[in-house]
Amino acid sequence: MKLIPRKIPIKVGNKFVAVLSKTTAHKFDLHAGDRIQIKNGHKGDLRAILDVSENGEIDENEIGLFSEPWKKLKTKRGDRITVTIADKPISLVYIREKLDGKKLSPEKYNEIIKDVVEDDLSDVEMAYFVSGCYKNGMTDDETVALTRSIVKNGGRLKFKKRIVMDKHCIGGVPGNRTTMIVVPIVAAAGLIMPKTSSRAITSPAGTADTMEVLANVKNDAKRLQQIANRVGGFITWGGGVDLAAADDHMIRVRNPLSLDPQGMLLASIMAKKFSVSANRVLIDIPCGPQVKVKKRADAIALGNKFKLIGRKLGMKVQILISNGEQPIGNGIGPVLEARDVLKVLACEKDAPKDLREKGLKMAGILLELGEKAKKGQGYKKAKDLLDSGKANKKFMQMIKAQGEQRIAIREGEFAKHVLAKKTGKVVGIHNKLVARIARTAGAPVDKQAGVYLYKKLGDKVKKGEKLFTIYADNKERLKNTEIFGLDNAYTVK
Amino acid sequence: MKLIPRKIPIKVGNKFVAVLSKTTAHKFDLHAGDRIQIKNGHKGDLRAILDVSENGEIDENEIGLFSEPWKKLKTKRGDRITVTIADKPISLVYIREKLDGKKLSPEKYNEIIKDVVEDDLSDVEMAYFVSGCYKNGMTDDETVALTRSIVKNGGRLKFKKRIVMDKHCIGGVPGNRTTMIVVPIVAAAGLIMPKTSSRAITSPAGTADTMEVLANVKNDAKRLQQIANRVGGFITWGGGVDLAAADDHMIRVRNPLSLDPQGMLLASIMAKKFSVSANRVLIDIPCGPQVKVKKRADAIALGNKFKLIGRKLGMKVQILISNGEQPIGNGIGPVLEARDVLKVLACEKDAPKDLREKGLKMAGILLELGEKAKKGQGYKKAKDLLDSGKANKKFMQMIKAQGEQRIAIREGEFAKHVLAKKTGKVVGIHNKLVARIARTAGAPVDKQAGVYLYKKLGDKVKKGEKLFTIYADNKERLKNTEIFGLDNAYTVK
Repeated sequence: MKLIPRKIPIKVGNKFVAVLSKTTAHKFDLHAGDRIQIKNGHKGDLRAILDVSENGEIDENEIGLFSEPWKKLKTKRGDRITVTIADKPISLVYIREKLDGKKLSPEKYNEIIKDVVEDDLSDVEMAYFVSGCYKNGMTDDETVALTRSIVKNGGRLKFKKRIVMDKHCIGGVPGNRTTMIVVPIVAAAGLIMPKTSSRAITSPAGTADTMEVLANVKNDAKRLQQIANRVGGFITWGGGVDLAAADDHMIRVRNPLSLDPQGMLLASIMAKKFSVSANRVLIDIPCGPQVKVKKRADAIALGNKFKLIGRKLGMKVQILISNGEQPIGNGIGPVLEARDVLKVLACEKDAPKDLREKGLKMAGILLELGEKAKKGQGYKKAKDLLDSGKANKKFMQMIKAQGEQRIAIREGEFAKHVLAKKTGKVVGIHNKLVARIARTAGAPVDKQAGVYLYKKLGDKVKKGEKLFTIYADNKERLKNTEIFGLDNAYTVK
Repeated sequence: MKLIPRKIPIKVGNKFVAVLSKTTAHKFDLHAGDRIQIKNGHKGDLRAILDVSENGEIDENEIGLFSEPWKKLKTKRGDRITVTIADKPISLVYIREKLDGKKLSPEKYNEIIKDVVEDDLSDVEMAYFVSGCYKNGMTDDETVALTRSIVKNGGRLKFKKRIVMDKHCIGGVPGNRTTMIVVPIVAAAGLIMPKTSSRAITSPAGTADTMEVLANVKNDAKRLQQIANRVGGFITWGGGVDLAAADDHMIRVRNPLSLDPQGMLLASIMAKKFSVSANRVLIDIPCGPQVKVKKRADAIALGNKFKLIGRKLGMKVQILISNGEQPIGNGIGPVLEARDVLKVLACEKDAPKDLREKGLKMAGILLELGEKAKKGQGYKKAKDLLDSGKANKKFMQMIKAQGEQRIAIREGEFAKHVLAKKTGKVVGIHNKLVARIARTAGAPVDKQAGVYLYKKLGDKVKKGEKLFTIYADNKERLKNTEIFGLDNAYTVK
């Protein structure tokens, strides 16, 4: 059939969607979700997912085209669009198989992920894929196949050196900005460490948000390759480079029910490492009552999974099970964290000790893994690189290479101090509550908002002494934090 | 925040969707799929599902409103829309529970179905619900709870009489138009039989398509109640009355992978019976190598499920396991089937015997179930009502009450005869292939297209004799049927 194009001036959901009236769809036995081929003479043709308008907004002789297909077909008024029926993607059969409990071959994973990236699967169809992986689990080989498929159907960075370092932290600990300490130390040792990081989703700051206080985190893949080859490393926002595109699509579908099938979680993380060509990787698994992994045994089991998947992908993976009982550093929120990091790198006296120590420990492991230090010598070498100022110098080179940012390193304008109600010892800091307070105060959107902790676990405190201060850019946000019961953030005994 | 409304002149997917720019969404920590409350001063407010435009088509200070919310908020140029964050529906928690293998209480099913009907669940969220029911199964109590929820959150027809009859056939047999024989017989006996039927989805005709040849099948609920109270019955398109609205939503989400969780299938069918207040129901389960239910044991098991669910809903359910080896009647396609039905009702000599016999058998069971005939006397009573012309008269009353249709009862203009290649006996008719040929010829969209069978199983046939004729409205469609290898439709030995 030939139809008059009607532009729908927006793009939501899938890239290529075309809309027919209910009457026309019925006439040609087409249903929402069917695939059609649409052609605008010799100006272009494309494959689209059909949607059906029930309300008479599209006439019988019209086809509704969202912005992207409209543009791709070089549509002009007066054009006529030819519609023919296209087959549904074969990957739907594989998704059904996975939902029915079958194991899928690498070829089938690749077909599914190819269609995800090409936007030829609707959100509903992807949701069934996620359901299948969630309910039936995935074998290690399936996880490897999914990882490879994500990388294959996305970009990949290549570097001149044989060894490429990376790290990842299974989040949940506020203020845990070790990446910004570790990457400069490792790069200062002459290794390559191309680090893509995420923005906060439910936390007060992701590494990308904090790094953005100091440097541009939106360089493209080509530029990032150059930076790493020249300076040794970068810290950029993963969402700004098209490295694991399939992952972003799938996360969109996983979000509504917060579904984290373990195989997908592993594949998502490992694909990001694989896509920057990393082959020596440190995974930090914080363990504690208020982070994702609560028991040491679970941390060990998860760590073994990472090692196994890594081995199958040709990566050496090492695991650090760290203490996740309290926030790391003193600042929580992009600027407050960036200030902590800068102090550690400049070896200032009042730099947070726990952040420095954790950074050194991780850098030490990575230096050994990267063959820059003998077994047992990594920590010492890392300390030398930090204390000599070499790491700091490297960090400044990285910032310059990525593009300097000029956000003032100062706290939000409005402050609220929370004081100890009695004298004693700090025996508990409520990670999640601290994070929510910082978020409510405005972090990570308001870069200077957040929380500054004066006391950590084991510290002595006197009645009336400051426990922490909340900073915000406006009074209302500051006031809003009170709903949490601010005194509950600390337990003093 | 206050935003400028921008109209998006279409409605697809969920009813109330609002779109923010990526920047604005990021600023307020909002994500696609979040729920927001949008208010247009005192002109109105509503709850919407948020979508995010990535492409800069919505400005930072704008909110995109699809047709329905635009209208509901009485939006005019110059208006300012206030947006506040709303909670996600609690039903998402229950959907997650179902996906995790828990059994849900009737209250939780009701909450989910209420949100489905109110369009407060996105397709992705519904897909997880379907996945949960599909993967974990549903107990009988859950099926009953789902059935009741579908009816509670939709319309329901009420009649003056104590006994209300209904029937349902688990499809798969072409030409199986018994409903149009059974309803007039049962109504002629003085019973009430309000029949909602479906249109074809993958078959050459649904009962609604065939009935539409003769009568209007789109009366509203109020009118249908009047018709049934006055005439005793009707045959209408279920999609035209808002009786099981939730079911339509869920079918849209089940379609992409053709997922038929048994509990949902049962609930879907039983909700339709329950929503017309039926309490005496006959379920026809055709059994054969090429229909949905292949083995007699499976048919019995399914039948027992129907009986059990029916009992819990206060319905008397009887099961007929019928022969599904070959099409019923001679015509396949709306007009060709309607002609068969009219011949049976008029007791014409060349009326298809198998259709007549199956209709009488089913009507007989229903007359006994409806207390109009003693046990063992139903068939005889049905035969009397048919042969006396009373059923035919009743059918004409029903047509008149629903509104007469004037589609000519004649075959499609173009015909292709398929002849026997040898002399022998018909030992096989390929149900699915016959259905595909009829569909390809144009049924059900072209009402007069389809297939007419001259020979049935066991019939003797001479070489060169006609086995069947294909009818179509245009030559191309007729020609297209050849791709199936028309000789494969019959096996002669």
